[in-house]
Amino acid sequence: MAPSVRTKTAIQAIGEAGLIARIQEWVPLNKDALAVRKGIGDDSAVYAPSEGMCQVVSTDMLVEGTHFDLSYMPLKHLGYKAVVVSVSDIVSMMARPRYFLCSLGLGGRFSVEDTSALFEGIRAACTHYDIHLIGGDTVSSQAGLLLNGTALGECEEDSLVYRSGAKEGDVIGVSGDLGSAYLGLEVLRAKKKSFAAAPTTQPDLTPYRYLVGRQIKPEARTDIRTLLRSHQIKPQAMMDLSDGLSVSLHALCKASKVGAVIEAERLPIHEVTAQTAAELHIEPMVCALHGGEDYELLWTMPQSDWNKIAAHPDVHCIGHVQAESKGIKLLHNNTEQLLEGRAWQHFSSKDGRTRF
Amino acid sequence: MAPSVRTKTAIQAIGEAGLIARIQEWVPLNKDALAVRKGIGDDSAVYAPSEGMCQVVSTDMLVEGTHFDLSYMPLKHLGYKAVVVSVSDIVSMMARPRYFLCSLGLGGRFSVEDTSALFEGIRAACTHYDIHLIGGDTVSSQAGLLLNGTALGECEEDSLVYRSGAKEGDVIGVSGDLGSAYLGLEVLRAKKKSFAAAPTTQPDLTPYRYLVGRQIKPEARTDIRTLLRSHQIKPQAMMDLSDGLSVSLHALCKASKVGAVIEAERLPIHEVTAQTAAELHIEPMVCALHGGEDYELLWTMPQSDWNKIAAHPDVHCIGHVQAESKGIKLLHNNTEQLLEGRAWQHFSSKDGRTRF
Repeated sequence: MAPSVRTKTAIQAIGEAGLIARIQEWVPLNKDALAVRKGIGDDSAVYAPSEGMCQVVSTDMLVEGTHFDLSYMPLKHLGYKAVVVSVSDIVSMMARPRYFLCSLGLGGRFSVEDTSALFEGIRAACTHYDIHLIGGDTVSSQAGLLLNGTALGECEEDSLVYRSGAKEGDVIGVSGDLGSAYLGLEVLRAKKKSFAAAPTTQPDLTPYRYLVGRQIKPEARTDIRTLLRSHQIKPQAMMDLSDGLSVSLHALCKASKVGAVIEAERLPIHEVTAQTAAELHIEPMVCALHGGEDYELLWTMPQSDWNKIAAHPDVHCIGHVQAESKGIKLLHNNTEQLLEGRAWQHFSSKDGRTRF
Repeated sequence: MAPSVRTKTAIQAIGEAGLIARIQEWVPLNKDALAVRKGIGDDSAVYAPSEGMCQVVSTDMLVEGTHFDLSYMPLKHLGYKAVVVSVSDIVSMMARPRYFLCSLGLGGRFSVEDTSALFEGIRAACTHYDIHLIGGDTVSSQAGLLLNGTALGECEEDSLVYRSGAKEGDVIGVSGDLGSAYLGLEVLRAKKKSFAAAPTTQPDLTPYRYLVGRQIKPEARTDIRTLLRSHQIKPQAMMDLSDGLSVSLHALCKASKVGAVIEAERLPIHEVTAQTAAELHIEPMVCALHGGEDYELLWTMPQSDWNKIAAHPDVHCIGHVQAESKGIKLLHNNTEQLLEGRAWQHFSSKDGRTRF
């Protein structure tokens, strides 16, 4: 008998959802995890140390070469973004962000001044979001710059919103505009390439300032949480759009066991996004559907409440929730088609993020 | 006038303590951080969401090439150790570890089976320490394997122990034995080198099993917390020995504004550590004083309470706290000498960890 050959399975073969499902099997919650309200499988984890007020926690890793390129990402902005990424996960549970911890892996070439610039961004974000840096870890790394942020938040138990509560008939809302952060990255990559080809010409980023800003200095939408709370609106389900609309919508629908219809004509696309997409021969709608890193919010809520916020310039109704059996569809030019969950994110399309 | 030249400062030039002090300046706690009981500067951060029960949180990064070498660190053990490192920080505040989150950076060569082995270790540790994996993040990394663990714990506010409470006259206790994890690493490195020189010979690690085990499968001393609590002993100050005794003692003394005397003859050194150190021509006492990664606990407590635990085979009184003006000393062969805070840790002595 020939010796058995064990072949290994590439992670790409099981995909993001497959990996999360495996991790849940590998490390299931024990039966005595009574205080855990949400473990693996949402934007943040939630536990209740005592009655009433829940603790909400999320952790995110940013790796040089996968998530950022220091040739166009200033260190201050990178520090700011490390906070935003994790704060966005707290806000998408409708919780209030409170604290931040940051682990850094620094290469030998990294100086005190560089570290200071990074923390200048972290500080600016902590001030902006009214949160406190309470701890971290700094290690040396031969592997480029590494950041891991952990954000902690709080929320009354009955105000928490998970991915899993969307109901048939809900309207689907998003904040801000979509696809701009992805296009900002495309612009930066194109300019880097042309600069490499002709180093004496200085790339002019002025027309793309908005898009580049969306990529290198995104904001977490704490204001949308405030808006919704001020109108006593509790979304049925919510998550952030760090992975792009189509991927997030699929995750939300799966968790809620529902389907959805997105109306292409209602997708909020910024004028500059539309123009630049045309220049780059990309369909703007495709950027809006699949471009990641916008850090906007996606939520569902009863139709009857929509009028309370409809006048706000930065919230947009883009479709509605339907029965799971009807699938996840895109309505475009009066034709319904399947909407696949496809991620275009970070600067290599083969690199993914699997938050669990 | 010549243009000003800004030279950059290497992080090594300001050292670990210098970096922590800078970070505290760069991102100070806001005045309204009333719920924060401990920010940057201890093993864990502490905040009080409500009266009574505090939340305790610590985050640690492990980088391939800096903190571990997969050629002798099995993935399962690495997963286990990632939990231990952070749990140890929670325990050293005398808090109860409850939850764990893990961010992973995985290279393209990393398979589902490899990931499973890593989580097998995480699961074993979660079971052993009775904690729950509640979340994480998985990203791709072109920079080798990266792990960031965040542990969350709980403690009644009046049971928390910081680094800063040591008082003159206290006895200094440590758990377990010292220097063995460091020597385990030296053995692994030596065997790797001799295997590279003569690949047909299989290295025999049998005589070194204890040391290698201390390096690749350390444990966090939750049992010491239980022991102390069961005797109603609240240490005055405590921290873990991940960075080695001398570095930890310096940090504890600095935070407490005290000095200390360590009696060399009282340092707990395992028989195998002593034998192996002799083989490698290293002074065993030097391993015990400066070798990192033992994950044992260091604490101070009133002399009068020591008898309650003195009979326990795994706790050792190694000296006492004295006035700050008397400095940090080592008493060896009836002679007092200065005890420097020097770290020998990880597998390259130039690589450090700066927890804040």
